[in-house]
Amino acid sequence: MIILGIDPGLATIGYGVIEAKSRISLVEYGIIQTLPTSTLPERLEIIFKNIDLLIKDFNPDEVAIEELFFNKNVKTAITVGEARGVILVSLKLNSVPIYEYTPLQIKSSIAGYGRAEKLQVQNQVKNILSLKDIPKPDDASDALAVAMTHYFQGRNKEMFLIK
Amino acid sequence: MIILGIDPGLATIGYGVIEAKSRISLVEYGIIQTLPTSTLPERLEIIFKNIDLLIKDFNPDEVAIEELFFNKNVKTAITVGEARGVILVSLKLNSVPIYEYTPLQIKSSIAGYGRAEKLQVQNQVKNILSLKDIPKPDDASDALAVAMTHYFQGRNKEMFLIK
Repeated sequence: MIILGIDPGLATIGYGVIEAKSRISLVEYGIIQTLPTSTLPERLEIIFKNIDLLIKDFNPDEVAIEELFFNKNVKTAITVGEARGVILVSLKLNSVPIYEYTPLQIKSSIAGYGRAEKLQVQNQVKNILSLKDIPKPDDASDALAVAMTHYFQGRNKEMFLIK
Repeated sequence: MIILGIDPGLATIGYGVIEAKSRISLVEYGIIQTLPTSTLPERLEIIFKNIDLLIKDFNPDEVAIEELFFNKNVKTAITVGEARGVILVSLKLNSVPIYEYTPLQIKSSIAGYGRAEKLQVQNQVKNILSLKDIPKPDDASDALAVAMTHYFQGRNKEMFLIK
């Protein structure tokens, strides 16, 4: 089974692809970037088309996306919501089931406890996937972490299907 | 010139189409609805496809959308942002220029002052378009108001192109 993990955003969207057989292994990771010099509709179009390409390229069976949390201002929340909506619709048009995990769930699954530091999570991503280095940038490492979190849910995963 | 006005949302999206020659006239208005019993990706897909259909059906030269304002909670802002992102990307994929107006700008343009009541704006929509009744529901009337606001900008309209 191929799992695509996504760390959503407007400027940088991390992605990580893993393959799960008897154990999990890395397929690919990277980021989609949009420039602040582009208009908002242009940036959303780039996100839409690149998510579509990821699906066409890796043909994932399931997608796991990190849930957004904001204690910041409402304007930022709308903007990142816009990007997330575009990611979701691009996935949905490709008929891929979408699962969602909070940062707390990701830290617990990967590093063993919900208050783990970012670096501990990244080191665990590296170790579990038997990589030489921590995947860079952070957004790509985060995307692999959410893909792995999804794999670790096993039969509980249906709880995390986006409603 | 054909102008499509949109009042964004997740559950109800109002739309209004006007034609501008020497004066403006009504072409069509209505709403797109999504049900809370559907999943979020399903609702976003419905919005994406119906916005696309509106463009195919009416072939607008320009689209005017009402800007979102929230003093409410951040979770709501993300959700409505998701819907708005999907509307914007569906429009952008059709290469239609998108303009944006605040509620204050709409009230000022249609009713003559920014603190006008909703009913005053609706009555002006009815009068200017020579309709027998106020267009219903409110979302459709709001969508016509933003389309008309765009028309009234004349040469100033480039100020309102979404960046």
